[in-house]
Amino acid sequence: MAIEAFDVVDLIHVKRDRGVLSTEQINWLIDAYTRGFVADEQMSAMTMAIFLNGMERREIRDLTLAMIASGETMDFSGLSKKTTDKHSTGGVGDKITLPLAPLVASFGVAVPQLSGRGLGHTGGTLDKLESIPGWQANIGPARMREILEEVGAVICAAGSGLAPADGKLYSLRDITGTVEAIPLIASSIMSKKIAEGTSALVLDVKFGSGAFLKDIEQSRELARTMVELGVDAGVATSALLTNMNVPLGLAIGNANEVRESVEVLAGGGPSDVRALTVALAREMLAHAGLPDADVEAALGDGRAMDTWRAMITAQGGDPGAALPVPRETHVVMAPRSGVLVEQQALPFGIAAWRLGAGRARKQDPVQHAAGIDLHAKPGDLVTEGQPLFTLNTDEPERFARAIEALDGAYRIGDAGDDIVTGGPLIAERIGA
Amino acid sequence: MAIEAFDVVDLIHVKRDRGVLSTEQINWLIDAYTRGFVADEQMSAMTMAIFLNGMERREIRDLTLAMIASGETMDFSGLSKKTTDKHSTGGVGDKITLPLAPLVASFGVAVPQLSGRGLGHTGGTLDKLESIPGWQANIGPARMREILEEVGAVICAAGSGLAPADGKLYSLRDITGTVEAIPLIASSIMSKKIAEGTSALVLDVKFGSGAFLKDIEQSRELARTMVELGVDAGVATSALLTNMNVPLGLAIGNANEVRESVEVLAGGGPSDVRALTVALAREMLAHAGLPDADVEAALGDGRAMDTWRAMITAQGGDPGAALPVPRETHVVMAPRSGVLVEQQALPFGIAAWRLGAGRARKQDPVQHAAGIDLHAKPGDLVTEGQPLFTLNTDEPERFARAIEALDGAYRIGDAGDDIVTGGPLIAERIGA
Repeated sequence: MAIEAFDVVDLIHVKRDRGVLSTEQINWLIDAYTRGFVADEQMSAMTMAIFLNGMERREIRDLTLAMIASGETMDFSGLSKKTTDKHSTGGVGDKITLPLAPLVASFGVAVPQLSGRGLGHTGGTLDKLESIPGWQANIGPARMREILEEVGAVICAAGSGLAPADGKLYSLRDITGTVEAIPLIASSIMSKKIAEGTSALVLDVKFGSGAFLKDIEQSRELARTMVELGVDAGVATSALLTNMNVPLGLAIGNANEVRESVEVLAGGGPSDVRALTVALAREMLAHAGLPDADVEAALGDGRAMDTWRAMITAQGGDPGAALPVPRETHVVMAPRSGVLVEQQALPFGIAAWRLGAGRARKQDPVQHAAGIDLHAKPGDLVTEGQPLFTLNTDEPERFARAIEALDGAYRIGDAGDDIVTGGPLIAERIGA
Repeated sequence: MAIEAFDVVDLIHVKRDRGVLSTEQINWLIDAYTRGFVADEQMSAMTMAIFLNGMERREIRDLTLAMIASGETMDFSGLSKKTTDKHSTGGVGDKITLPLAPLVASFGVAVPQLSGRGLGHTGGTLDKLESIPGWQANIGPARMREILEEVGAVICAAGSGLAPADGKLYSLRDITGTVEAIPLIASSIMSKKIAEGTSALVLDVKFGSGAFLKDIEQSRELARTMVELGVDAGVATSALLTNMNVPLGLAIGNANEVRESVEVLAGGGPSDVRALTVALAREMLAHAGLPDADVEAALGDGRAMDTWRAMITAQGGDPGAALPVPRETHVVMAPRSGVLVEQQALPFGIAAWRLGAGRARKQDPVQHAAGIDLHAKPGDLVTEGQPLFTLNTDEPERFARAIEALDGAYRIGDAGDDIVTGGPLIAERIGA
């Protein structure tokens, strides 16, 4: 890319004053920021100006391409299989990648899933998988190709070589209050996914109290922006807008989410986890040219489970090993009989985080056995004194603040009361 | 001040989302930033959010008071004289402080004028005075009091102890594109002036092409905001909105501006420089209880000049010494006969800066003899071939870019053409 020299203060003024940055200006900005010629304090002023004044579609595409150009790209075009990937914007109890990747791979499609670790109240796929004894998140590109060819699915850590500008910019946004800007979220997610070299991509964009973006309108705008970016870059992309007002499934944490994923792969599991896994698998398989694949059958007959075992084994894990159990548990009982009418995702996510399932700072460890097991979902009848949920941790001093987070987070009503779920699980599909 | 702990990201979110920061939040923010607990990149995101979403009067007052509380304050209440000070937002050829301070002091009023150096196209009072052989900008508070008692006027560098948060914040804003935010400009100027302990203050707020703020509406808002801040802090404050579409006087530079100031103190000088000096002196003297002081007489009978000589001598300068002259000059002639109808302040300021009169970075030196001498002002008749202006520098390689800046900056028309000055020199007065 040809680099012309600009003055970063002039570029900040353009965006501050509601102007539009040119392709050359965006290329220069991202390159100069990656190399350290533009200082963090200058980039944070720019990102706040972008947050408040927005970006046009062309600017967002240029930003995404500039972040891709800041590092290496992967290329899976030499594989004997089609590649398709999935990204979720993150939610409470969102373990869908775990059953989804082997399920899709069981149809002969390659799923190169580069995942992250959790931060705040949303869990990270790698944190969950690391509760399996022996399993390794870090594998090199050569081994990744081998596993994709042989097993079909890989879930691993993204190397720091992909879109390094995004890594630097995301860390900055995290401490400067500009995380929730749609142009910045969209370019951050899509730069990594496009750099990763997938030929198709399905996005699970969450809305609701437990999601990153609360409003469905904002989630829809993010989904549309990302679908446009994918299409512009030649990646077949579609998105589902899914409801994150209620935790997904019955497990929130790490090891307990792996257990629930294995239940789904065994043909069972909670109906919401199963339904979302199936819907996303159908999207991915349609992109790979298999719109009529019988996804339910692959869960029922053990094919998806076989691929899961092969995938875990290929990354050093023992799929048959016992998963960690918590040192301490605290069971919360139903204070009365009735119907569970409300169970809010965000406070349950925060409680699980406070129990040790998540981390506050990137460098913190997580407890693999920490989290929450739910014993009822909205709409379920409950009886006074029955267990409503179980809190799990290795450090019992964590119970008090977790219980505090759950104050007002659930409610038992009467038959006939409205069940507060904020609508169906899958609200909309966006894409061609 | 009681310090409660906040999370800076939460405070950035408040201002980003158009909220209002509490007094406690602003106190904490400025204290934590001064101590280094809030990082520059966080403060720059906050200042961009303030730039774009504004601040209420109470927030601006709190910000100003928090910046004052970040450092030392001065107290001149023990002096036998009343104190009054002046601040200009800066312009091209604005040397008014030089004749003004001794003129006001000649009436027995103390003028403790803490001044700055120039950056960009507007000159700095200290840079101009430093062209006087021997003159020292840095004097301690004890000597400052002595000079105020004996002579009445001091023009010196502000110590780093006054409002250090402002110094840190201003440097940050300068490189992150948030200089022109009214809440930030107002709190920056007023925190230093209030910390300096003056009992009255007159503000010269410029508007027009050569000013910091181009629009009179913005200048008026800044003036009102600063007058409110002064009044809220118990400082008698008023402001004049003055026109900076045309350079002030006939000299733009350093040593040449000292020469022009001495002309005014000798009872002569260009009419605009003289008129603005007199108007500001009347404002200052009225605040000091002398509304009927005969300012013109003090310029005519040598009293103001005597105070100037005493003031320069008290700071080590020789008021009779020859001032530096440039090594090279370049005279631009009138290309035709007619009337000078336009002379734009900004390009002349930029040209003087490029000749070496100003600096691009804080640490750069200035050339004392560099600048521009104007030989005609808008409305003057000129004859083909007569000198229009003279460019001065010690480095002749600077002429080309200075001349480039002046392309289209002046225009000779015919008798009867409109004279483009953007209105009268003194447009409005704001204050009680």
